[in-house]
Amino acid sequence: MVGAGQLARMTQQSAIALGVELRVLANTSDESAARVIVDTRLGDYRELADLREFATGCHAITFDHEHVPTEHIRALAADGYAVRPGADALVHAQDKAVMRERLTSFGAPCPAWTRVSGGAADGVSASAAEGVSASGAEGVKEVSAFAAEHGWPVVLKAIRGGYDGRGVWVCRTPAEVEEALSGGVPLMAEAFVPFERELAVLVARSPHGQGVSYPVVETVQQDGICVEVLAPAPGLDPEEAAEAQRIALQIAHELGVTGLLAVEMFQTADGLLVNELAMRPHNSGHWTIDGSRTSQFEQHLRAVLDLPLGSPSMSAPVVVMANLLGGDDPDLFKRYEHVMAHDPGIKLHFYGKEVRPGRKIGHVTAVGDDLETVRARARHAAVYLTTGEYT
Amino acid sequence: MVGAGQLARMTQQSAIALGVELRVLANTSDESAARVIVDTRLGDYRELADLREFATGCHAITFDHEHVPTEHIRALAADGYAVRPGADALVHAQDKAVMRERLTSFGAPCPAWTRVSGGAADGVSASAAEGVSASGAEGVKEVSAFAAEHGWPVVLKAIRGGYDGRGVWVCRTPAEVEEALSGGVPLMAEAFVPFERELAVLVARSPHGQGVSYPVVETVQQDGICVEVLAPAPGLDPEEAAEAQRIALQIAHELGVTGLLAVEMFQTADGLLVNELAMRPHNSGHWTIDGSRTSQFEQHLRAVLDLPLGSPSMSAPVVVMANLLGGDDPDLFKRYEHVMAHDPGIKLHFYGKEVRPGRKIGHVTAVGDDLETVRARARHAAVYLTTGEYT
Repeated sequence: MVGAGQLARMTQQSAIALGVELRVLANTSDESAARVIVDTRLGDYRELADLREFATGCHAITFDHEHVPTEHIRALAADGYAVRPGADALVHAQDKAVMRERLTSFGAPCPAWTRVSGGAADGVSASAAEGVSASGAEGVKEVSAFAAEHGWPVVLKAIRGGYDGRGVWVCRTPAEVEEALSGGVPLMAEAFVPFERELAVLVARSPHGQGVSYPVVETVQQDGICVEVLAPAPGLDPEEAAEAQRIALQIAHELGVTGLLAVEMFQTADGLLVNELAMRPHNSGHWTIDGSRTSQFEQHLRAVLDLPLGSPSMSAPVVVMANLLGGDDPDLFKRYEHVMAHDPGIKLHFYGKEVRPGRKIGHVTAVGDDLETVRARARHAAVYLTTGEYT
Repeated sequence: MVGAGQLARMTQQSAIALGVELRVLANTSDESAARVIVDTRLGDYRELADLREFATGCHAITFDHEHVPTEHIRALAADGYAVRPGADALVHAQDKAVMRERLTSFGAPCPAWTRVSGGAADGVSASAAEGVSASGAEGVKEVSAFAAEHGWPVVLKAIRGGYDGRGVWVCRTPAEVEEALSGGVPLMAEAFVPFERELAVLVARSPHGQGVSYPVVETVQQDGICVEVLAPAPGLDPEEAAEAQRIALQIAHELGVTGLLAVEMFQTADGLLVNELAMRPHNSGHWTIDGSRTSQFEQHLRAVLDLPLGSPSMSAPVVVMANLLGGDDPDLFKRYEHVMAHDPGIKLHFYGKEVRPGRKIGHVTAVGDDLETVRARARHAAVYLTTGEYT
């Protein structure tokens, strides 16, 4: 697994059970996964030579993040490595313009969108490079024309590299568009979606073509960061849930995904719209560790090793996951005991990371029968752990 | 954790979630836990110097097995380390004569038993040394007298070091007693118990004195080795189940156990009798990884770190665990795919050990609503994986 963040760390828990020997490529030996994986190699995922040395002897290569350059992934595949997901699939999680073009081509429901001129060509994104112009004026004109058709505000998104709300600008005027374009980052424009709530569907697909979908969940964001996941999505119409799963499985199939695919969606009065894709274990699936018979981390390993997939069924009627975002007080461990004593059923997950304000340092999960109770339990634990406040 | 077998390996899965940095003392770097724990130290648990070096910087010391000499445990405690369980508790899991004496003293139900003369003093067991005589003749006489009162057969047990049926002799005649005594190992005698079935109760106790009990399980043995665990024990009368839990919690309290205590019991027509004690995660509790809200490994960490204990409640009405015992074919991984495809809900646990006939190399767990179905699923997976036979 290239990358040694919390996703690789939690993958190790499943690798231990499956008897899979997990190797990670870390930047430094104190990263989240490097602390718990014996076969940690140090190197730079942006350097092909480092990736090649890392890959030697591996049965399959997969990823903890989407930042490995597409051409390096192609080079590893050309070397004969089983890279899962492959470059042709992964590029759709790396490049939002490529993703929108492809999804639109087979009819997956997307917000209205358009490419935007302007933004420096950085050599990384071929699709972005196509749209470069000498000045941002062209881009502002394009976005204004788009807004004339679809209305303000318009959402500008960095085509590559954005996450957790970074790389997204909600622009209400041409002046704000000009401001966003001045960053020099290749952008695309999307219609602002007046959504009712955000949903996520996690599916797995193996090289054999076997597919499996977890129940549709609701994700709750604050300032663009996921703070809470409710499984299953409360009150979701079963037909709409099945439709969400169908869309996610279709995307996995059409793109030839191997491994996990998380599809973030908007639920609107007019139906579902695909927001983002990720091809790896995903924050919206952390609840599966304690709440499903097969955790997403085990599922990802099974899929990338082309093993039969595991049951995605839930181990309780309601599961709520809340992220732990670092607060001002770096010593959250002094509140650890309280949370354990307060609720013997709460499941704590720490990522072995130093606390920094706003940083995801862990998550908690509660399971049970009643949504409001379970949600209150998860929220209490998360809020108390990170702020010391009693909810 | 002193020792790097599968118990330490599975403890690492929970340590990762809790953010606990787990260090193990291994004999060699290819042991089960050493393969998955970054902070593995090599050394000999029989050498105090190695133990002292290992312990330096640890917040608490605990064990993967019961073979660390009692006097070394006392020395570590005298050095100021938090050794959990402590020597005064652990000796009851190391020395069966000491255990029987103590349990009898506070009325825990035990089979009739007696010390037996004979067996070389090995300097390890003070209690055994007391009983040494120049010849085995004295021992044979004592056992015959014991049999005159309690009947043949008589069960002779090595006072120290037996496990998985080793160190136990069921003797039907004085000649068989003489044979068993000729091994030179300090032994004790117990009345043969015509039990209906074997039960096990797993409890945890923290230094604070908080105690928790998992549901009583039935353990199924073959040739003295546990092959199957049924949770909860099918058809067990609720009052007898409560009595079993009461006995186990009382033993934990009386002996001052810190960490887990597994109490193996015989269920007889006349009630429950305590068979063996273990003070660590135990084979009879492996089902908790997939079948309880708190796995025994997490519970052990919480107890030895004096954290509040976790909920022992089950995540399904029925859970069955079956051990994987190595068969003649060392390559069981080629049957791995079949088992996963046959039953997407089966949970596989491998210990990273080379297959040797009879060796515990892993376990499988099935959960569900119906005992016969769940049991058949677990059995199919275990038998097919280890023998290739289809049940």
